[in-house]
Amino acid sequence: MGWTRKDILHMEDLKPSEIQIIINTAKPMKEILSRTVKKLPTFRGRSVYNLFFESSTRTRTSFETAAKILGADTTSLAVAQSSVNKGESLLDTVRTLQAMKPDLVVIRHSSSGAAHFLAKELKAGVINAGDGQHEHPTQALLDLFTMQEHLGSVEGKKILLVGDILHSRVARSNVWALKALGAEVVLVGPPTLLTPEIKSWGVKTTYHLDEELAGADVIMALRLQLERQKAGLLPSLREYSQLYGITAERVQRTGKKTLIMHPGPVNRGVEIESSIVNSSQSVIEEQVTNGVAVRMAIMYLLLGGGTNHVVD
Amino acid sequence: MGWTRKDILHMEDLKPSEIQIIINTAKPMKEILSRTVKKLPTFRGRSVYNLFFESSTRTRTSFETAAKILGADTTSLAVAQSSVNKGESLLDTVRTLQAMKPDLVVIRHSSSGAAHFLAKELKAGVINAGDGQHEHPTQALLDLFTMQEHLGSVEGKKILLVGDILHSRVARSNVWALKALGAEVVLVGPPTLLTPEIKSWGVKTTYHLDEELAGADVIMALRLQLERQKAGLLPSLREYSQLYGITAERVQRTGKKTLIMHPGPVNRGVEIESSIVNSSQSVIEEQVTNGVAVRMAIMYLLLGGGTNHVVD
Amino acid sequence: MGWTRKDILHMEDLKPSEIQIIINTAKPMKEILSRTVKKLPTFRGRSVYNLFFESSTRTRTSFETAAKILGADTTSLAVAQSSVNKGESLLDTVRTLQAMKPDLVVIRHSSSGAAHFLAKELKAGVINAGDGQHEHPTQALLDLFTMQEHLGSVEGKKILLVGDILHSRVARSNVWALKALGAEVVLVGPPTLLTPEIKSWGVKTTYHLDEELAGADVIMALRLQLERQKAGLLPSLREYSQLYGITAERVQRTGKKTLIMHPGPVNRGVEIESSIVNSSQSVIEEQVTNGVAVRMAIMYLLLGGGTNHVVD
Repeated sequence: MGWTRKDILHMEDLKPSEIQIIINTAKPMKEILSRTVKKLPTFRGRSVYNLFFESSTRTRTSFETAAKILGADTTSLAVAQSSVNKGESLLDTVRTLQAMKPDLVVIRHSSSGAAHFLAKELKAGVINAGDGQHEHPTQALLDLFTMQEHLGSVEGKKILLVGDILHSRVARSNVWALKALGAEVVLVGPPTLLTPEIKSWGVKTTYHLDEELAGADVIMALRLQLERQKAGLLPSLREYSQLYGITAERVQRTGKKTLIMHPGPVNRGVEIESSIVNSSQSVIEEQVTNGVAVRMAIMYLLLGGGTNHVVD
Repeated sequence: MGWTRKDILHMEDLKPSEIQIIINTAKPMKEILSRTVKKLPTFRGRSVYNLFFESSTRTRTSFETAAKILGADTTSLAVAQSSVNKGESLLDTVRTLQAMKPDLVVIRHSSSGAAHFLAKELKAGVINAGDGQHEHPTQALLDLFTMQEHLGSVEGKKILLVGDILHSRVARSNVWALKALGAEVVLVGPPTLLTPEIKSWGVKTTYHLDEELAGADVIMALRLQLERQKAGLLPSLREYSQLYGITAERVQRTGKKTLIMHPGPVNRGVEIESSIVNSSQSVIEEQVTNGVAVRMAIMYLLLGGGTNHVVD
Repeated sequence: MGWTRKDILHMEDLKPSEIQIIINTAKPMKEILSRTVKKLPTFRGRSVYNLFFESSTRTRTSFETAAKILGADTTSLAVAQSSVNKGESLLDTVRTLQAMKPDLVVIRHSSSGAAHFLAKELKAGVINAGDGQHEHPTQALLDLFTMQEHLGSVEGKKILLVGDILHSRVARSNVWALKALGAEVVLVGPPTLLTPEIKSWGVKTTYHLDEELAGADVIMALRLQLERQKAGLLPSLREYSQLYGITAERVQRTGKKTLIMHPGPVNRGVEIESSIVNSSQSVIEEQVTNGVAVRMAIMYLLLGGGTNHVVD
């Protein structure tokens, strides 16, 4: 099957076969990333623009690294500091960008739907690098890639997502991806961060982490925005970590060699005990490497690299 | 005729024959920009430094894109945030830059004459990307290129520049260019933004837009800095747009298929009615594309690419 | 002798033979920098990350230019504005970076020892671009290169370092380098900036510049951070420059064609009289050029370019 999609906007859109094409393409990309000479000649003279309305060194650098290895030219627009201040609408920013003839645009924006809006307006391919609290599909894809590397298929595997489900685009995108591939997903968090409407996502929800540990194949802790505390959504970090922190003792109780994941950066001692972050079960750094590989794969497919014969 | 000039500083300096060489070189550059592989091998190993003392994503990205397509290495120095804070003089910044052996330096600075000063001190070619309220020659050249594409020669054509003439380096540079090529230029704006000394520019000035619409081949609205209002130079945005806003009704009254231009970003509903920005007569996005092409052409000429046989 | 070191962290570590390999490698690199086509194909597909926790356009641009000429891909992380604000530890930032498979990491950080910490954690080579008030080894190497170009060997040469010795990582790194190569170093400054513990560095210290001028081969003025005055460490800039400013009259009294050096940017009229900055004895701009060459040489060696047959 060939690749036909112009953009990567939402996990909710992607068919399981498309997800698998991306992950299959990410494998040789990861191999290239481990070479001494990390460079493909494939996309010389193609242009990738990073349009980040929210600051993010981590994600932006991952995309930038991916584009450079593919041989494309990459330009970062820190839009927060520029024309937006001059009152320019997103539409006009996008049209200006289109006029510079980009091949791919990576966007992070605080509004849900910003990436979708961009994709409609642009001839270029668009990759959603996070739109508000809505979706972060490349994160879900790198998480899936990481799980498959360790577990084989995720079908029937028990995967806990723990923490601030309500505000997490990572959680949303992962739920769509994991459901599509037949995993058993459990969302765990305090009532203020796991509100009743989340039941509509169609997976199990619970406030009680300890009841769900047994048999868990993956525990993915989500990043806790510490400002939630000020907003009254958290009692104290200490209480949070007592109820939801991933400790050695809790990991023990899964009865399995459970994978420990986190989208980073970790608040050590809050979401995950420091010793667990450093343990052999933690794949947090591997997630970062896989992030570059998955973003290379996505760019490769969107730029028309084809679904076969990836490697030079 | 060969190209001999080291720098592009002011439209006022350029001879009509030089203007025409730049525009003739921009044409094949625009063609390259529309290719899948947007890359010339010509200037590999040449270095272009963007030295922006005023922030500008739009213009900086245009220059950066142009340099990359030509195959040059490009480095952006956001000087506002750096050594200038340490009290370093422009002279010392420039000498430090010279010591890094640049081939071209693009400068935007709040002082009139900064680019000229740089050009005297540097062996590298210098391109003025806006010096205070003085000149913005690459903007005038991209505007001319755009007009010529649609009108053929601008000789004898009636071109209205509307708005904040007083503070506009775009207006100044366009007036020199259009006069040199024999266009009929009319400057239109409120008395506070079209002060008596502007008569010395040698073109018609008027406060009354409606009297000048008939026969206009081009209406170029200038960007209104909204802070002018606070400074007491504007009554209200509503009154401004009533008197000087480019509306469908006004465009109708030209009796021609008038080109609508704007250097961007547009304050929709202030300088130009939103429907007119989106209309088929608007070439605002084309101006952006032509901006990349003209900057490629200028870099090409300054780096010694020659005036013939541009394309690879 | 081959190159074996993974990192460049401290001048104090480097053997004289290693210093000489770097400088010998810098010579052909400087020649490349003066060519029209400034590009080596050697390190295509290698990645250099600039990790600057303190802002510095000057040093960052020098490293970026060096990496690009060597053909490597380079990415700048302005870390001050990003994940650090999210409470991410240096360790976690470093592990994230490691997971992106860098070949070299250039770090500037406000803490002494940050570069050393990074080097232990990373498989990639690490270059210290300044760690707090501790060391700035590439500056000392470019200073040495500059002195050797003009003086031949520095052995037995009299070299004055003048100014804020206490807070200067440039002074520290230069002292280790110059001692290792047998120069006669004299540290000169006011008592508040040349405190008793500096005697432990093992070179002559004095408060009296005028007594040391005779026979000086090099006078290196250090940059005075003007905020020291607020901290009560300086009486007034006028008094400082009367006692420690490098004036034409003082240069005259050395009885030699003394080299005048400064790491930049200079506070003209404070550390050095403006006419002396511009004089033929000043090599301040040459230091900048040599900085690019020395950084190219270091990257070349750390990336395994070998110690022979540098030039393409």
